[in-house]
Amino acid sequence: MSSSSIKPRPHYYTLRFSCPDSTGIVSRVSGFLAEHGGWILHASQHADEDNNRFFMRVEVKADSLPFPCAELRKRFAAIAQELQMDWQISDSAVRKRVVILVSRQEHCLYDLLERWRSRDLDVDIACVISNHESARSLVEWHGIDYHHVPVAADNKAQAYAEIEQLFAQSGGEAFVLARFMQILPPELCRKYLGRIINIHHSFLPSFVGARPYEQAYNHGVKLVGATCHYVTEELDQGPIIEQDVIRIGHGDTVKDLIRYGKDIEKAVLARGLRFHLEDRVLVNGNRTVVLR
Amino acid sequence: MSSSSIKPRPHYYTLRFSCPDSTGIVSRVSGFLAEHGGWILHASQHADEDNNRFFMRVEVKADSLPFPCAELRKRFAAIAQELQMDWQISDSAVRKRVVILVSRQEHCLYDLLERWRSRDLDVDIACVISNHESARSLVEWHGIDYHHVPVAADNKAQAYAEIEQLFAQSGGEAFVLARFMQILPPELCRKYLGRIINIHHSFLPSFVGARPYEQAYNHGVKLVGATCHYVTEELDQGPIIEQDVIRIGHGDTVKDLIRYGKDIEKAVLARGLRFHLEDRVLVNGNRTVVLR
Amino acid sequence: MSSSSIKPRPHYYTLRFSCPDSTGIVSRVSGFLAEHGGWILHASQHADEDNNRFFMRVEVKADSLPFPCAELRKRFAAIAQELQMDWQISDSAVRKRVVILVSRQEHCLYDLLERWRSRDLDVDIACVISNHESARSLVEWHGIDYHHVPVAADNKAQAYAEIEQLFAQSGGEAFVLARFMQILPPELCRKYLGRIINIHHSFLPSFVGARPYEQAYNHGVKLVGATCHYVTEELDQGPIIEQDVIRIGHGDTVKDLIRYGKDIEKAVLARGLRFHLEDRVLVNGNRTVVLR
Amino acid sequence: MSSSSIKPRPHYYTLRFSCPDSTGIVSRVSGFLAEHGGWILHASQHADEDNNRFFMRVEVKADSLPFPCAELRKRFAAIAQELQMDWQISDSAVRKRVVILVSRQEHCLYDLLERWRSRDLDVDIACVISNHESARSLVEWHGIDYHHVPVAADNKAQAYAEIEQLFAQSGGEAFVLARFMQILPPELCRKYLGRIINIHHSFLPSFVGARPYEQAYNHGVKLVGATCHYVTEELDQGPIIEQDVIRIGHGDTVKDLIRYGKDIEKAVLARGLRFHLEDRVLVNGNRTVVLR
Repeated sequence: MSSSSIKPRPHYYTLRFSCPDSTGIVSRVSGFLAEHGGWILHASQHADEDNNRFFMRVEVKADSLPFPCAELRKRFAAIAQELQMDWQISDSAVRKRVVILVSRQEHCLYDLLERWRSRDLDVDIACVISNHESARSLVEWHGIDYHHVPVAADNKAQAYAEIEQLFAQSGGEAFVLARFMQILPPELCRKYLGRIINIHHSFLPSFVGARPYEQAYNHGVKLVGATCHYVTEELDQGPIIEQDVIRIGHGDTVKDLIRYGKDIEKAVLARGLRFHLEDRVLVNGNRTVVLR
Repeated sequence: MSSSSIKPRPHYYTLRFSCPDSTGIVSRVSGFLAEHGGWILHASQHADEDNNRFFMRVEVKADSLPFPCAELRKRFAAIAQELQMDWQISDSAVRKRVVILVSRQEHCLYDLLERWRSRDLDVDIACVISNHESARSLVEWHGIDYHHVPVAADNKAQAYAEIEQLFAQSGGEAFVLARFMQILPPELCRKYLGRIINIHHSFLPSFVGARPYEQAYNHGVKLVGATCHYVTEELDQGPIIEQDVIRIGHGDTVKDLIRYGKDIEKAVLARGLRFHLEDRVLVNGNRTVVLR
Repeated sequence: MSSSSIKPRPHYYTLRFSCPDSTGIVSRVSGFLAEHGGWILHASQHADEDNNRFFMRVEVKADSLPFPCAELRKRFAAIAQELQMDWQISDSAVRKRVVILVSRQEHCLYDLLERWRSRDLDVDIACVISNHESARSLVEWHGIDYHHVPVAADNKAQAYAEIEQLFAQSGGEAFVLARFMQILPPELCRKYLGRIINIHHSFLPSFVGARPYEQAYNHGVKLVGATCHYVTEELDQGPIIEQDVIRIGHGDTVKDLIRYGKDIEKAVLARGLRFHLEDRVLVNGNRTVVLR
Repeated sequence: MSSSSIKPRPHYYTLRFSCPDSTGIVSRVSGFLAEHGGWILHASQHADEDNNRFFMRVEVKADSLPFPCAELRKRFAAIAQELQMDWQISDSAVRKRVVILVSRQEHCLYDLLERWRSRDLDVDIACVISNHESARSLVEWHGIDYHHVPVAADNKAQAYAEIEQLFAQSGGEAFVLARFMQILPPELCRKYLGRIINIHHSFLPSFVGARPYEQAYNHGVKLVGATCHYVTEELDQGPIIEQDVIRIGHGDTVKDLIRYGKDIEKAVLARGLRFHLEDRVLVNGNRTVVLR
């Protein structure tokens, strides 16, 4: 191996889109890039034959193009319009900002903080919002703003208005629900569709709702899992980004299941979030296309 | 490693039981065995603290005892009665007999036939019963009896009476439903409780009933699985013996899911059946204890 | 889900190639296809930044092109030459033919025969060759030719000459070593580079050579695995196509490891062979690119 | 489920031992416990037929015995001596103390700190020792002592003397090497045999020594793993406690492998350490018995 496989990745733009399928899409997009000298670092495609929709993601080396990202967007817009694309171009030099929502359980928060601190996850954490005070000191030690927004039965509208305002002020691109044990209001789910990432502590669609590990225990399943998904109005039903499971045994109590589950929750949330940050997740109805 | 780790296992008896938990059970059982010189090859226990029930499985070297299996059963019966055990003693020299039920799909059948032929699975296949003729030649090539029992809406009672008779005549200990695509009548399920082993082609409790791979596809899950369980009256709800999953991707069609699933079905059914044949599975309400 | 996701796949051609990386390759290839109305069903690419090599695989709908496969090959040859491609175009209507080599152990053979018989694996089995007679009747029951070619210390040259002749006569595209317990002569490995698929019963590079399960047992590993790879002159060192592992425990003997391992061997060989048959595996030095 | 399955575990003693195998060991031990009213919460055994050695672990409810732990130890000593046991009795009320050694990489440290803080892992962290200053503030924020002990080519003896002194002063029971990138001196390995737990960033015995992920990349393996083991004098060759793997693809660089690997390292170290803390790991030559 040359030393290049551990060198830092170059500056690049990521184009991703979906559109009605037809002949010549790849040719059109790659032709446009080639015309301007665009060097494709990576590309992947998917055609959904059921609904005749085409999905594509391309990484183009920034300095192979003779113009900046804004100009690329402007020029690509014409093709996008013509092919009726749902599209986006992001710049690897502009780190995405997320707002983390958390309750009392800290395992996912710790995990994200470590990945952020070690630069393992290429993200800015705009702030952490919690309905408890308990994680303040930990978060602030990391130099990240912490906002305590109590959520009670009688102040929900106000609480979520505050959360939304904090999100807007901080320039957040997405919410990460790192075991936030509150149900978001439907209008928030609609407004930020595809931008609220949740970790659910079961292998959905099994064990929707509360106390999934107790449900799993009672069913006598031999594996427990976790699911990272985009939040929609319907509880625990949004498009699944990533899932995984871990083996348990008859000797494990509910407490043991919870403990095993934490490891899976951390890993699955981190993987799902990474896919989101790297512009790999394209929503396809109630399913996702995750382009590697 | 000495060569002993690949030598054949010695002749042994397997005692397994469950009973109300109390002080001194292990002592009582192991004391009884020690008294007669019984050499314990392997033992495992489980105490369910929720329902205060104790589960144990012991392998005793046959020639360490001064009497045959029948006498062991007779002598142990007194302890079993006193401790209110649900118990069983089996003899490794007496191979268990199963009856396989199958429909058109042959992957699980092939898999079991190979394991039987290579002696990898220590079992006698009394016969194969199918509601189709398609597997006859394959089964008969293996020197195993094949019975075609058509199951239609208007002959169910008669068909299952015939199946039960074939089972009785063949000295079967258990039914193995190797992708038998028919729902057994409730009275059969009750009569052979804990002796009908099914493979369901989903990770239960997700996707109960028909076409689980289509259900999985529609939910956009990222893993599909299979479940080996004892059949009860309630469809796909019996105590789970074993489960496993395999990763799928957005590019996989329902046909691909079915294909991936087959590999998991084969492996899970074979593992679950082995646990059953080795007297490792003790039913605990609607859950199982699988003593290794 | 519309019913389309379970409909049979259309007739298509698969183009795959690798070449020195540069700007405009995707554009060139997709432009060529678009020019003739070629409908891309699926495409995937990989750029190896270490050795500056580009890999691509495209599936094109056959009836979207105005000419047959031979003409496609002819026309594409010009581009291929210009871009210094190592390339191939295959036709989904032409089933690949393989020759299976096997010794005494039949688990992988059974598994492949079932996949072949159920059309789960889209392959023709030209014949089965073995250094034992034991599997003849099983293979012949499937209507497949069986050749017994004894391999002994003093007849190796002659035996492999016979095997090669059988392969040539049968129109085989690839050899599948389904637990063939003989070491192939170096000249055979060289001649059929990338066309001899082996399953090795360990997670390579651990436990090269003989008795890997005993080696695994002695090392006290907690997982055992299997490796599907192309055979090269250097024993068990060829490019890895696929691998997997399974968990074992301290209570498992070497015999148990062998038994667990069989399940992994079957699954890994079947997956690796499928990747090969679907033209997904491109060799990249001593590594493989498996384009999904 | 009654609420009991999530109630805290009762106070208990854990007896574990290995000894030459013979008739009556289980009876002798369980008889001794029953004699004093000892309630067995959990028990497991293993007989190694290769070297004729027996392994057992029993959890006994503390308040079912009429005497304290010290007296239990005293009374059991007679049996232990007679049966030539290598044995130990621990008290669930006495939390084990460990000393963590770490270098620059913090992912395992973060993971352990979170498990410690949330009481998910029942352990006292006596202190953290590092050959760098970088983690001081993080550790001290948790209220745990941090010692910077530089280890250089010319001060090794002195550095390890200091480390050993810190360990002794802190009352540590075991060392946890949470990615400590230094090779311990042989005499330290010998002195604390079975009490130094390391996480190695490969699926041993593959990729011993430095830069295992680069080695894995160069071999083109399809899975990478991690190994938790007791440290012995021979580098990366000590008895394996736990292992796991994760799937990688041809598109992953060495940097990606390192990142995937971190998740496995964290999980495997945490599981291995838990087994150690719960007195489940019994060394058997160069292998381990992990009694569940």
